[in-house]
Parts: sequence; structure tokens; C-alpha cells
Amino acid sequence: MKELEEVEILIVEDNENDAEMALRALKKNNLTNHVLVVPDGEEALDFIFARGKYEYRKDYKRPRMILLDLKLPKVDGMEVLRAMKENAETRIIPIIILTSSREECDLLDSYRLGVNSYIVKPVDFDKFVNAVHDLGMYWLLLNQQPK
Amino acid sequence: MKELEEVEILIVEDNENDAEMALRALKKNNLTNHVLVVPDGEEALDFIFARGKYEYRKDYKRPRMILLDLKLPKVDGMEVLRAMKENAETRIIPIIILTSSREECDLLDSYRLGVNSYIVKPVDFDKFVNAVHDLGMYWLLLNQQPK
Repeated sequence: MKELEEVEILIVEDNENDAEMALRALKKNNLTNHVLVVPDGEEALDFIFARGKYEYRKDYKRPRMILLDLKLPKVDGMEVLRAMKENAETRIIPIIILTSSREECDLLDSYRLGVNSYIVKPVDFDKFVNAVHDLGMYWLLLNQQPK
Repeated sequence: MKELEEVEILIVEDNENDAEMALRALKKNNLTNHVLVVPDGEEALDFIFARGKYEYRKDYKRPRMILLDLKLPKVDGMEVLRAMKENAETRIIPIIILTSSREECDLLDSYRLGVNSYIVKPVDFDKFVNAVHDLGMYWLLLNQQPK
């Protein structure tokens, strides 16, 4: 995977189809060219905290948003969320859970851990693309965050 | 002010013009008829925690989102945010700061306290209405939350 210098959106997603669809939705609308997809929670944490193969990113700008799946290999999404929201530095990055789970306990846990937003993946292809487009517009154009 | 039984959106705003514009934007698009405006942070906390004149709301459904101004009489918006995000029960309600402040310290404090989203009020009337419309669509139609 190409390691982009600037990463505006980090997508943490092990399902290649879903990752591909999300990428297409974001790029189609020219929302961003700076998207990185990582396939598991461990790599997501390495990226965010500039560890392991991402150690070189210590002084890089943090991503503007993270799209986080819940069911992930190695470290699951809930643990990624917990680790990021427990840390004062990484807490300010908006995390949007993008999952197929509508389970009440997943919703409750996510909000209690401080998720910014929780979106259930639409099953229908067009609706999925529209949802990712709408959330991209919202978080990149309307929402403000610290520099 | 009429006390609505069900309140889907709580707007905490002391500026009557801004409150009126936000109400119009939400109602124009039939996003909701269940909006309550309160003019200061103290009343917002009374409403959320079912205290004082809102004691009767103890068993009522919580609002689906809160639009919170920062500069507020009595108790300021940052304190309302802190109180709500410190409490496990109220933490799950999405709070969107809607403010004229672009101050970096306000942005940082809000994200550190766990705000869900932070939107700077557009000065232009049409842009203000569009922003409130877009955020209403996002939080009421796309975002999921616990029952």
C-alpha cells in the first residue's frame, strides 16, 4: 500500500469491498485524495500513535477524520476507539464508526467511549456510496476541528 | 414557552435571532416538530437532568441531539458540555456546538471534553440556514444512536 504523506481520512476496514466503495464515494466527489486504508485495528493504532512502521509519522499532521469498522482483526474497533479517546492528544480526532452492527450494546459502548458519530452501513450499494459521501461532506466541510 | 412532551432537538441559545433561524431551518425541511429552545446553560442542565421545573421529565425519552451555543448566560456552554459528557447516562446524547467562536482554545476544549461535532455559525443568513439543515439531516437521518 502506498504510504501517503498527508492522510486526511483514515479508513480502518478489513472488508476490501467496503473499503473500495468508501474510497470511491470519497474520491468521486473530490472530497479528498488523501485517504489511507488500513486493514486491522493494530495497524490503525500504529498509524495514529506513530509506532512500528509508522514511526516516521511522529511529526505529521493528524488525520481529519477516521472511519472505523467495529469487527476487525488483531485489535477490534472498540479497542481502537477506547485507546484513542483515552488519550488527550488523539481524542480530538473525529471518529465515525461505520459498521453493519445495529446492536444496542455496540451503540451504547461506542457513545460511552466517546465516539463522535455512529453510522450503520447501508446494504444497498448506492445507499452506501451516498452515506459515505454525506458523511464526508459533513465532517470535512461543515465540522470544524482544532488545527 | 410551550413545554413539548417529546423533545427531539434541544437548542441552547440566548440569541433570539439565531434560535429563530435554526428553528426555521429545521422546521422548513420537516426535520422535526419537536424542538425546544432554552435560553441559558442552567435551564439546559435542568432540562437534561430533569431538575427544577423540568423534574416531571424524569422518565421522558432523552433528546436525539443538542445544539449548544458556547457563550451563554448563567452557566456557559463549556460547562454544560462538561457536565453532560461526565455523566454516563447523558454522554450518549450527541452534542453539536453551534457557535460564532473559531478560537483554537474553544475548539480544543470542546473536543477534549467529548463534543460530538463543532460547527461555526455562518454569518450569512442563507448559509446559516443551510448549515443547520445539513446538520439536522446528518444527525437525525444518518447518525444512529442508542434507543
